[in-house]
Amino acid sequence: MGKLLVLTVLITIIGIATWCALPMLLPESPPQLDANEWWGPMDTKGKVDASIKPFQVKFTEEIIKDLKNRLQNKRQLVPPLEGIGFEYGFNSKEIEPWAKYWSEEYKFGDREKFFNKFPQYKTNIQGLNIHFIRVKPQVQPGVTVVPLLLMHGWPGSVREFYEAIPLLTKPVSGYDFAFEVIVPSLPGYGFSDATVRPGLGSAQIGVIFKNLMNRLGHKKFYIQGGDWGAIIASQMATMFQNDILGMHSNMLIVQTGCSTLKTIAGAFFPSLIVESHLADRMYPLWKYFSYLMEEFGYMHLQATKPDTVGVALSDSPTGLLSYILEKFSTWTRFEHRTLVNGGLTFRFSKDQLIDNLMVYWASNSITTSMRLYAENMSNKNRALGIDKFSTSVPTWALQAKNELFYQPPNILRHKYSNLLGVTVLDDGGHFIAFEMPKVFADDVFKAVKLFRDFHKTKTEL
Amino acid sequence: MGKLLVLTVLITIIGIATWCALPMLLPESPPQLDANEWWGPMDTKGKVDASIKPFQVKFTEEIIKDLKNRLQNKRQLVPPLEGIGFEYGFNSKEIEPWAKYWSEEYKFGDREKFFNKFPQYKTNIQGLNIHFIRVKPQVQPGVTVVPLLLMHGWPGSVREFYEAIPLLTKPVSGYDFAFEVIVPSLPGYGFSDATVRPGLGSAQIGVIFKNLMNRLGHKKFYIQGGDWGAIIASQMATMFQNDILGMHSNMLIVQTGCSTLKTIAGAFFPSLIVESHLADRMYPLWKYFSYLMEEFGYMHLQATKPDTVGVALSDSPTGLLSYILEKFSTWTRFEHRTLVNGGLTFRFSKDQLIDNLMVYWASNSITTSMRLYAENMSNKNRALGIDKFSTSVPTWALQAKNELFYQPPNILRHKYSNLLGVTVLDDGGHFIAFEMPKVFADDVFKAVKLFRDFHKTKTEL
Repeated sequence: MGKLLVLTVLITIIGIATWCALPMLLPESPPQLDANEWWGPMDTKGKVDASIKPFQVKFTEEIIKDLKNRLQNKRQLVPPLEGIGFEYGFNSKEIEPWAKYWSEEYKFGDREKFFNKFPQYKTNIQGLNIHFIRVKPQVQPGVTVVPLLLMHGWPGSVREFYEAIPLLTKPVSGYDFAFEVIVPSLPGYGFSDATVRPGLGSAQIGVIFKNLMNRLGHKKFYIQGGDWGAIIASQMATMFQNDILGMHSNMLIVQTGCSTLKTIAGAFFPSLIVESHLADRMYPLWKYFSYLMEEFGYMHLQATKPDTVGVALSDSPTGLLSYILEKFSTWTRFEHRTLVNGGLTFRFSKDQLIDNLMVYWASNSITTSMRLYAENMSNKNRALGIDKFSTSVPTWALQAKNELFYQPPNILRHKYSNLLGVTVLDDGGHFIAFEMPKVFADDVFKAVKLFRDFHKTKTEL
Repeated sequence: MGKLLVLTVLITIIGIATWCALPMLLPESPPQLDANEWWGPMDTKGKVDASIKPFQVKFTEEIIKDLKNRLQNKRQLVPPLEGIGFEYGFNSKEIEPWAKYWSEEYKFGDREKFFNKFPQYKTNIQGLNIHFIRVKPQVQPGVTVVPLLLMHGWPGSVREFYEAIPLLTKPVSGYDFAFEVIVPSLPGYGFSDATVRPGLGSAQIGVIFKNLMNRLGHKKFYIQGGDWGAIIASQMATMFQNDILGMHSNMLIVQTGCSTLKTIAGAFFPSLIVESHLADRMYPLWKYFSYLMEEFGYMHLQATKPDTVGVALSDSPTGLLSYILEKFSTWTRFEHRTLVNGGLTFRFSKDQLIDNLMVYWASNSITTSMRLYAENMSNKNRALGIDKFSTSVPTWALQAKNELFYQPPNILRHKYSNLLGVTVLDDGGHFIAFEMPKVFADDVFKAVKLFRDFHKTKTEL
């Protein structure tokens, strides 16, 4: 029996190794997407200018009046079930205080000023007016300015980076560089236009953002992302391996047959896959699947019927609030599900969270933001198979304790062959730049220093 | 090789037969639920009266004014993507005409009268005031009146049966009986109270409805259901085999290891499982799974976060409309997904569909209606395992062409040992009583005649 076990383990290991080596036999370069694909109305094609226009966030009197009216006239809600916190979703007892704060205490004028503290622009790329923040640092001679693209996800926005931007754009002792940050709103999110036709998934957004960076004069640049931003970053790093200087991701994941196989094998032999003190971030698998079932209904719905649920979320500010803030509760700390207030102000202020809601509400973009799930899961975009190709772009992962997924370096390296390392945090959640801006900015500095050293070493060799 | 294939098939058949015989070895009776479990506030326990009080549907001036105001002030919607019908969900171009009809042409007074054309009552059962329609037929001597409980599902209501009720409650030539129909609103749906604590799933609703029938003087009775109504009916027929005289279901399903195994085996050898002209209702399996993925996001969300999405749907009538009517489009004809108008008025009038919306809107019950998904999929309720037990209650299935699921008699008989037969329709969808009331009522008569014959034969033996 002992021999049989050894044989089984051996065969398993050889099987996984073979499977995982297969992608190496694939053609090296992933599919090339059309760099000029037009996402605006067809009659605007060739007629839009490529200038960069200053932009300011504006909460109009009309929007504010209508919003307050809706908040004050919100419909009576059924009480939560006895003894329930956030286990059935957003606790309806908490709607009243949030609606009151939003309509009576949230200072729209001050917050508008806050939003405009950074220079913002719009420029038309492939038919869509893309909104972005651009902050250049003031540096002494000897300090290099390096361009960094910061990408948000759903249900976040550029607002997630407001606390981190000042930390990234001023020189830090010990580093001979500082960042020029470019922070775009994803197409269909906030102040960026939405596509008018199907097909605009994360890979196509990657093309748009590369065009944006090129237009701003950056042929080569660093990228950072979380949530959709992390997916887009990963695909940019795969499609544009010569242009992306390095990728920092706070949700780095691999989704291939090999990663799945390794994950399953690790359920039986965890020590083959993951360091013992991190095993509980992956295993037991049943706990992970139960978590997926419990927490990913929104994804299932948004990937299939975004326009249906979008009607209600566009029309009801309390509806939008509950739908979005539920994610800021559970994705920050899973255990906040049991709290009546969802632990929302554990790390965020009410103003911070409502700022982010205002991006969706004022731009009326919740429906178009949710369509990204449908596009990414369409047969056509899945068939591109970009995730199957590996990338040599130097990569760093920031792994917060409460992130939605965890994969260890030995799985990640299958795709990210130059994963220089990971920062494993014993704190923090999904919206890490928003939640812990100092930790986030420090990690980005650390990673980019390593990326720069990596390139220098390569040049020297 | 030929011998090996025969051997494989033989082993498969023996395997399935063994697996499917296993439940016969289980204890015969399913778990007994507490017939007096209290679902109302604890301080009302023992203090409510058991009388039956007349009830009338009332659309108050206040509700109508508020509703019209919301419909007229609905927020501007983003247009659908180019070339898209209902594939991303409810087409936003269709919201405007529906909202206009609801607020300007729907005659609230007339519709209220329509709702009250049948006698309605409320009575408190286990702490909840349960609303029901009760219509007794006028019959000649020699015609027997038999009690029939009709049960709706989500996102339907008692309104689904309004066209069928008159057909069921008058004598039909060729039959020596007519029905007294009792049509309750499910707890948490429409005009029935919602539970105040977790745990009230379909089996517990079955207990409440049995108590309701007993209170109305019916110790033994027939049952009919679709959607949740079909699930409740199946569980009632399993738990109360001596009291249920017969079950007519328009969504009869079995969910056991055996049924799954047979379904999978049928993917390879369809002729073992299903008649060839019906095979395309089950196979190919990938098409079925893709359909599940595409159409069951709502279920995933409602089973996990009903309270979150409930906030928006309670607050926005256009949101409620799109969320509910999407189902009346796709569940009536799957291919209506490609139509800009969703084919909604293909078989239903606008008034019919808005009537059903009014049941949810006026009672503000969308959130509590969706909680049923969470309750039924809770670990506690799944552990009851009622579906695993078979029932000897005589059963008949009406199988509409466009029903969400199809299972052939040889799978159904595993649970419903006295399945007397099925009616296979080449027309119709999920809301069959609402869509084709005459076909529905005729089939119920036909089935109950067979149930009565079945009992007579049994008595004679």
